[in-house]
Amino acid sequence: MYNFKNDYSEGAHPNILNKLIETNLIQQLGYGEDEYSIQAKALLREKTNNPEAVIYFLSGGTQTNLIVIASSLRAHEAVISAKTGHISANETGAIEATGHKVIAIETTDGKLKASDLQITLQEHALRPHVVKPRLVYISNSTEIGTIYTKADLLSLSEFCKANNLLLYLDGARLGHALTAENSDLTLSDVAQLTDMFYIGATKNGGLIGEAIVFNRPEVATDFDYVLKQRGALLAKGRLLAIQFLELFRDDLYFSLARHANVMAMKISAAVKEKGYPFLTNSTTNQIFPILPNTVIEKLNEKYLFYVWKAIDEKQSAVRLITSWATDETMVDAFIEDLKNA
Amino acid sequence: MYNFKNDYSEGAHPNILNKLIETNLIQQLGYGEDEYSIQAKALLREKTNNPEAVIYFLSGGTQTNLIVIASSLRAHEAVISAKTGHISANETGAIEATGHKVIAIETTDGKLKASDLQITLQEHALRPHVVKPRLVYISNSTEIGTIYTKADLLSLSEFCKANNLLLYLDGARLGHALTAENSDLTLSDVAQLTDMFYIGATKNGGLIGEAIVFNRPEVATDFDYVLKQRGALLAKGRLLAIQFLELFRDDLYFSLARHANVMAMKISAAVKEKGYPFLTNSTTNQIFPILPNTVIEKLNEKYLFYVWKAIDEKQSAVRLITSWATDETMVDAFIEDLKNA
Amino acid sequence: MYNFKNDYSEGAHPNILNKLIETNLIQQLGYGEDEYSIQAKALLREKTNNPEAVIYFLSGGTQTNLIVIASSLRAHEAVISAKTGHISANETGAIEATGHKVIAIETTDGKLKASDLQITLQEHALRPHVVKPRLVYISNSTEIGTIYTKADLLSLSEFCKANNLLLYLDGARLGHALTAENSDLTLSDVAQLTDMFYIGATKNGGLIGEAIVFNRPEVATDFDYVLKQRGALLAKGRLLAIQFLELFRDDLYFSLARHANVMAMKISAAVKEKGYPFLTNSTTNQIFPILPNTVIEKLNEKYLFYVWKAIDEKQSAVRLITSWATDETMVDAFIEDLKNA
Amino acid sequence: MYNFKNDYSEGAHPNILNKLIETNLIQQLGYGEDEYSIQAKALLREKTNNPEAVIYFLSGGTQTNLIVIASSLRAHEAVISAKTGHISANETGAIEATGHKVIAIETTDGKLKASDLQITLQEHALRPHVVKPRLVYISNSTEIGTIYTKADLLSLSEFCKANNLLLYLDGARLGHALTAENSDLTLSDVAQLTDMFYIGATKNGGLIGEAIVFNRPEVATDFDYVLKQRGALLAKGRLLAIQFLELFRDDLYFSLARHANVMAMKISAAVKEKGYPFLTNSTTNQIFPILPNTVIEKLNEKYLFYVWKAIDEKQSAVRLITSWATDETMVDAFIEDLKNA
Repeated sequence: MYNFKNDYSEGAHPNILNKLIETNLIQQLGYGEDEYSIQAKALLREKTNNPEAVIYFLSGGTQTNLIVIASSLRAHEAVISAKTGHISANETGAIEATGHKVIAIETTDGKLKASDLQITLQEHALRPHVVKPRLVYISNSTEIGTIYTKADLLSLSEFCKANNLLLYLDGARLGHALTAENSDLTLSDVAQLTDMFYIGATKNGGLIGEAIVFNRPEVATDFDYVLKQRGALLAKGRLLAIQFLELFRDDLYFSLARHANVMAMKISAAVKEKGYPFLTNSTTNQIFPILPNTVIEKLNEKYLFYVWKAIDEKQSAVRLITSWATDETMVDAFIEDLKNA
Repeated sequence: MYNFKNDYSEGAHPNILNKLIETNLIQQLGYGEDEYSIQAKALLREKTNNPEAVIYFLSGGTQTNLIVIASSLRAHEAVISAKTGHISANETGAIEATGHKVIAIETTDGKLKASDLQITLQEHALRPHVVKPRLVYISNSTEIGTIYTKADLLSLSEFCKANNLLLYLDGARLGHALTAENSDLTLSDVAQLTDMFYIGATKNGGLIGEAIVFNRPEVATDFDYVLKQRGALLAKGRLLAIQFLELFRDDLYFSLARHANVMAMKISAAVKEKGYPFLTNSTTNQIFPILPNTVIEKLNEKYLFYVWKAIDEKQSAVRLITSWATDETMVDAFIEDLKNA
Repeated sequence: MYNFKNDYSEGAHPNILNKLIETNLIQQLGYGEDEYSIQAKALLREKTNNPEAVIYFLSGGTQTNLIVIASSLRAHEAVISAKTGHISANETGAIEATGHKVIAIETTDGKLKASDLQITLQEHALRPHVVKPRLVYISNSTEIGTIYTKADLLSLSEFCKANNLLLYLDGARLGHALTAENSDLTLSDVAQLTDMFYIGATKNGGLIGEAIVFNRPEVATDFDYVLKQRGALLAKGRLLAIQFLELFRDDLYFSLARHANVMAMKISAAVKEKGYPFLTNSTTNQIFPILPNTVIEKLNEKYLFYVWKAIDEKQSAVRLITSWATDETMVDAFIEDLKNA
Repeated sequence: MYNFKNDYSEGAHPNILNKLIETNLIQQLGYGEDEYSIQAKALLREKTNNPEAVIYFLSGGTQTNLIVIASSLRAHEAVISAKTGHISANETGAIEATGHKVIAIETTDGKLKASDLQITLQEHALRPHVVKPRLVYISNSTEIGTIYTKADLLSLSEFCKANNLLLYLDGARLGHALTAENSDLTLSDVAQLTDMFYIGATKNGGLIGEAIVFNRPEVATDFDYVLKQRGALLAKGRLLAIQFLELFRDDLYFSLARHANVMAMKISAAVKEKGYPFLTNSTTNQIFPILPNTVIEKLNEKYLFYVWKAIDEKQSAVRLITSWATDETMVDAFIEDLKNA
């Protein structure tokens, strides 16, 4: 069975494991004060074009989201998220467990717009009987594969600045977003237009690790305390740092993401050729074709993937995810099987 | 500079890294449903002599402590800990951040006794104006290097059972405790006498990882939800599982710990020979000699370690930690320098 | 200006104030152990036909909701509520501040149905990536004036029992619900069909006070601790108890509510006679007529009320609330002014 | 049995009940926007000599403490309190339930000194492994009857300002403190030397109510949201406001407290005359004589009071509390019985 269920089915890009072995017995300080952490932070400040950035490394997306939010908000402040946003749909109430409401907004494409924010603020005007919206959470790419353009992000950024809202971007799949064929955003655009964002490694070639980047030092004040308090400060920070050192040494992070996108788009083209529609308009490594249930059954004999949503009695949307490690021969085999199904 | 500051200065035992490389491209399910997690759990159930045990893998000690406690307690319930206990002294209020009070008990040796618990219950009798003690937290070895004997643990266990208290053992350095020369406890004793405990890998040869073992299934009910909610469920569970697969395949976990202890006891013997006293009566890999400040200064030129506590104007206690990776030639060099200082 | 904004514009029914004065200097134990609390609890056990009920008195609705929920749920458990439910729409994230997600369900009439619960459970099946629904929150009367029939409540109750869900009824306006002309529910029905509910006094003749009734002792375990912990245990419990002693000595609680309903229905009839529609189908003391903006402006010169929602450019829904203290002559005056507007 | 157990055995000063009756049917806005709240706030601003003060009314001490602290601190920040402080000893972990650690300091007299704070800061230097002390909690009078002098408070205030600590004074018994024979503090001193404090009415003639006074508007930012979120915003704010309107209209608040103190000191003098010692050096309305157990038994036949602490096999400390309502003839009777015991 070949696995198209997710982009974390394999371990890590070999460069990372090699570097772990190469540096294994060099003594280092603990708790993120090792040389590799220092180097990796410097490297990311350079790659984001922001010498002021304050950076920490964490172990996963839910952890990063909950700590950033717990650290940023006062008791009565709330987060605005698309209903499909990871913090709203997939994190077991992690944000609420830190005491904060997630205001979930219905969207058609998984993306928030300034107009959504405007309406949300109006609906939260009856002080003090409602929470105070304070942080806007977006994902790029989104949980349904769509991406933000530069104009999208600029518009959100301006609205947030004008309304005293923090803008936070979940970049679990940031590489896939920035290398999508229709993306006009760069890493430094993201750094300029958000207050903070994270760069996900786990889903793009790392064994573990997300890098939270605070674009203005003042939003990072005392973040180290909260990081420790929520159990995210690893004794061996070298493990996380080395992921980013290797992924960003050259262009590896982006080339891995591009591979994943290309693999997904190849399948996408085959789906279109067969005349099947899609649930969402994805240009990244998660695609949601709507297939006849008979086809799904057939494919399920050889491939693992989620059946996402029943559309009607005869067809369902499935989710196919490709990754940095996806084997193109298996993609070709899948396409062949799709054609014949 | 050679580092005696902690037991997480190096990476991991090479077997672990080799296994990570060997299995790297084998596709696995995510979120702890991989084959290695299944195997490692089975292995630990066998090693703890408890086929009923429910086991999860986490990334660090603070994380494990806070999730176990958040998962076990109702809103008004509290934890009892020695004042030197990690959750009381070193975790940035992690337990309080989950809403629970830590009742800190002064001890001379870092260990809780049944009599401490008895007094604490008496002091918390004025219901509902005080919290309800519900979980007892102990560390073995303790934060100051001491260990619990079987009789110690038996006595606590009986008191807890009789008083509806959960007994939880923090085993960040469980290997060091169980292999101390004066220990009469086994891993299966620990499994029998506590409700839950964790086996620490990070400080004993692992790159990352702690295994929480619930000795009765009913205390583990729904733990998976809380694990996810607090950001501890890694997408690539294989990373954690492989640590334990390798450390417990044979006797590696214990032989690594024994090495650390032996190195510490070798330094200890040299300290005693020089006539210097100790702050605590440690038989494990953390020792706290009281040295003249002039000697400390001299040693500090070549060795990294914490100056733990000023004793008077002329002498201070220091903390020296050895590990699975401590180089015996450096231990010998340190002893030589100590003799000559 | 006469106030139709809410049902807490006046103080308390005079019987309550008189009783406070009459008992004022009789020494009592503190913290709810006074004689009046004991008597009032006994009285409510009798009125609810449930000798097993465990009862506490609190100061307000938000307080009661948050403490009941904080006391009932484990960390990963969540509440299901109508989107219009008070905990979802009007309590500044009080439930989330205790760490729990409120799953908000869109409804047309402010009421939850078993089918809503069924769908919600299905949508929360992907354990452990989503919260675990555990408590169902309903209000009777609802925030938009509608009520639950006995069949409604029976159906919810059965679904909850079959699915291990707790059923909690917010009775801030329970008197109004039970005395509505189309209600077939009694206080003892409510006690039989829910796990817990509260009887609101603040909005029905009390100066302050809500009585939480746990219909099965086991759901009340240790509630006193959480009550104290969240700051709800008044030193002078007599203040709260005396409200209920007076309101339930005879039929006062219900006759006050009936008066409020009759006043609202009188206005309602006049609205209908003028041919104006309603936003919701209320039979209790909150009504939501849709009026031309010109009429609203005119009425606003003499009466206070909320403009609830713009319907289109020319008309808006308003909220009119009557109470135990509403003066019928002012109701008649309002109707007259409405007719002439 | 006459009750010396606490200072909340009776209802309220009659002026308050009379005013409640007098204003009962005057319609008011809800949620603290009533005229009485506006007037009472203005009155307290005048009495504290601080036109900038931001004031809210709450229902009890635990509630006030937890909301002030939850509103003031970020996730990793902690409170410093004497171990005998109410938040540390008597509030069921209310502060921890908001996520914040209470650092408890041993004292001999229930009072914190600048030197205690200095040591605490030193002990919390190992960032980020420990919480960040941010708010200092003191009570005046303390839980054991002692008081802060102006010099005491000045010294704390200076230390706090110099070290970025907020100074918060719990004034559950502020009246008793300020009217103690050895007090040189005034209400405006308290307003000048703290960041915020509360004026307790419940224990000094009110039926219910504490007034939180923020001495600088910036520390009160968005407090209204948190007040609502934690269930403390009463629908009928008039109830709380009228307590303060009446108690501070003239000098009533202070004359009631003075009466309580005088009654306690009268008993105190009799205890001394009999040659019995005291557990604490109280000059306010709570005294802790150490009496032979036989005497205690005898007195217990006619008087209610707490046996506070066994001193040895033959004697115990008891706690006697007097109040605004304590009947001097009963005090005289008690003294007579003490003499004869």
